[in-house]
Amino acid sequence: MKFGGTSMAGTERIRRVAGIVRRQQEAGHEVAVVVSAMSGETDRLVNFCREANALYDPAEYDVVVASGEQVTSGLLALTLQSIGAKARSWLGWQLPIRTDDAHAKARIESIDTDEILASMARGEIAVIPGFQGLTADNRITTLGRGGSDTSAVAVAAALKADRCDIYTDVDGVYTTDPRIVAKARKLKNVTYEEMLELASVGSKVLQTRSVSLAMKEKVRVQVLSSFIDENAPVADTLPGTMIVSDEELEGLDMERQLITGIAADKNDAKVILTAVPDRPGAVSSIFGPLAEANINVDMIIQNVGRADTDTDVTFTVPAADLDRTVAVLEENRETIGYQKLSTDPKVAKISVVGVGMRSHAGVAAMMFKALADRGINIQAISTSEIKVSVLIDSDETELAVRLLHTAYGLDG
Amino acid sequence: MKFGGTSMAGTERIRRVAGIVRRQQEAGHEVAVVVSAMSGETDRLVNFCREANALYDPAEYDVVVASGEQVTSGLLALTLQSIGAKARSWLGWQLPIRTDDAHAKARIESIDTDEILASMARGEIAVIPGFQGLTADNRITTLGRGGSDTSAVAVAAALKADRCDIYTDVDGVYTTDPRIVAKARKLKNVTYEEMLELASVGSKVLQTRSVSLAMKEKVRVQVLSSFIDENAPVADTLPGTMIVSDEELEGLDMERQLITGIAADKNDAKVILTAVPDRPGAVSSIFGPLAEANINVDMIIQNVGRADTDTDVTFTVPAADLDRTVAVLEENRETIGYQKLSTDPKVAKISVVGVGMRSHAGVAAMMFKALADRGINIQAISTSEIKVSVLIDSDETELAVRLLHTAYGLDG
Repeated sequence: MKFGGTSMAGTERIRRVAGIVRRQQEAGHEVAVVVSAMSGETDRLVNFCREANALYDPAEYDVVVASGEQVTSGLLALTLQSIGAKARSWLGWQLPIRTDDAHAKARIESIDTDEILASMARGEIAVIPGFQGLTADNRITTLGRGGSDTSAVAVAAALKADRCDIYTDVDGVYTTDPRIVAKARKLKNVTYEEMLELASVGSKVLQTRSVSLAMKEKVRVQVLSSFIDENAPVADTLPGTMIVSDEELEGLDMERQLITGIAADKNDAKVILTAVPDRPGAVSSIFGPLAEANINVDMIIQNVGRADTDTDVTFTVPAADLDRTVAVLEENRETIGYQKLSTDPKVAKISVVGVGMRSHAGVAAMMFKALADRGINIQAISTSEIKVSVLIDSDETELAVRLLHTAYGLDG
Repeated sequence: MKFGGTSMAGTERIRRVAGIVRRQQEAGHEVAVVVSAMSGETDRLVNFCREANALYDPAEYDVVVASGEQVTSGLLALTLQSIGAKARSWLGWQLPIRTDDAHAKARIESIDTDEILASMARGEIAVIPGFQGLTADNRITTLGRGGSDTSAVAVAAALKADRCDIYTDVDGVYTTDPRIVAKARKLKNVTYEEMLELASVGSKVLQTRSVSLAMKEKVRVQVLSSFIDENAPVADTLPGTMIVSDEELEGLDMERQLITGIAADKNDAKVILTAVPDRPGAVSSIFGPLAEANINVDMIIQNVGRADTDTDVTFTVPAADLDRTVAVLEENRETIGYQKLSTDPKVAKISVVGVGMRSHAGVAAMMFKALADRGINIQAISTSEIKVSVLIDSDETELAVRLLHTAYGLDG
């Protein structure tokens, strides 16, 4: 079971969580719980780090920000004890959860489970802080924002859990953000691939990495709300959304929609390099240094520039990396040879996702037509096997999502 | 160097601390820094634990409350790096700082220094969270409130440091609380024993345990303010108070005052048992059960009672333990056989302290006379080799301190 920051925000809410956990144990399950920091706490700690050192050492950043989950782990163990359950916390370095040494965005390599399995066999609920791990040289790492989902899936895989229930502030995965489209419907099931695409384009239910890991490790993940009635009967099938394999889904859901969901993401920023010399190596002179700086470039378009000998290159990066992107590009200005660098953070990426589109043509065309009919300008396009994304002006985000939700017949 | 919670309260103040630390390094010192949590943070975390579970498991309590110092350690390392110093944090479990398993009030057993000494030899400033340690079975401990002073002295001893500088929100040890007596003078030097007596009677500059440890390990401790001008010249002798051995003090300060300082402590409460049968074992029937309940009894007076066959017994306990004391005495009423139990939390213990009184008679007499001259009633007396304490009505605390400060010639 994994509980996010909203569910852990304060001792009152932690008491609810303890009730939910306790009832699962009483229903006969052995339970390990992965917890996030109280909502707002990680932001507070990250801000401290930024104030302390704008170019912070990620190893020390990890020491600071990992503390948020340490606090909630101890508090949940205490609260479980207060309602009569046996429980103890297992910090990342205690298990340990081994990671590589890429501080602030570490990857889990292995989790030792001997001690924790013995503890669970004694009837103790194991409480594990999400987001954190330990390097080979004994230093704290964190997995990057939202990393607690990945921790939960990794723990579920290591423990060979029957299910990984991710409790969050929504009660499942929807066809789109219900705050934008009132008619959005909750999905009973969604495939790993669909969830991956949805997660990667702004449906913030689960962190992308956690879904990849679940797919790789074949962990059955359920998304459900922690704001359910804590006294409701515990059924094996809870009313959330199950994330399953393609094969399992086919058995479950014969009449699949063409499109499963529509997602919007305002966290990218657009970068435009004007008049880049059109010569071999030009592109790699741009994206090589960005890759070295660990900046993920997403949509890329190359236009013909004003002169025949140069081109304009437009691409998107996470808005959070925009300052660093500009710094890297300015550092490499001579090598790249561009004339002008401009940026636009006011963009949104709208994506339609569905395994159904594998067997149906015309999904992208329907999207472009629906947007064009309402005069929404498409600034860039990218596609995958089960997703079509377009970049638009962020002011048009909600309008685009609503009209696509209707166009693909998703309105409930 | 050790910095307390007020000095670490927020990134602005941590920046000041980093400046002070950096200048010590630039002056040629190898530096390890022990830090407290931001002021208020430990209280916040303790409250969370109490809300989660009134009878909290101290092992999980430690997981929660140790996080405050983890945060400030990372932040100070980051801030030092931001001003060009090499620095890294060493958490209690990383060094490790080995303690016993008395969670929430653990005692330090040993500190491994191999790695940290190697790091310091490479020019890195070591930043160590105070207050925390690690049990033999790999769980976090904390040392009890104010434990960071003890951590600092223990680290200084383990590193064989030339000096342990404890930066606090006062700039040294004074003849008495300057908030009470405007003419209080800062002491250049004070002996371990004097500091112990002052610490135990309410001069809250250092935790008592840290002073005992410093005396045992012969660590030269200096108390000084972190609110000094961070650009002031770094001299080997900073303008704080040095805590040294008796022998060292004699060399430093030939013309010692008779009395070093006057302290007031309002944290005790008085308990009166009326008409206790005057028979063998009566006293042990009172204080045995209190000792078992871990309640520290301080001043004890036995008066002749109303009848020849009984006595009144008066004593003091920490005010925080008063409710428990009453409960224990009521439980044992029959065995003790007292007629009436009354309590008075409105008392203050006033102490005059000084190694000078070893070689001078009349110190106590001067105290009693000075108080009597102003009509202050003495309710109890206790003495040690270098201290005389009296219990008075707490309303008279400030008056008593002021007139004793003058009587012993301490006014600056």
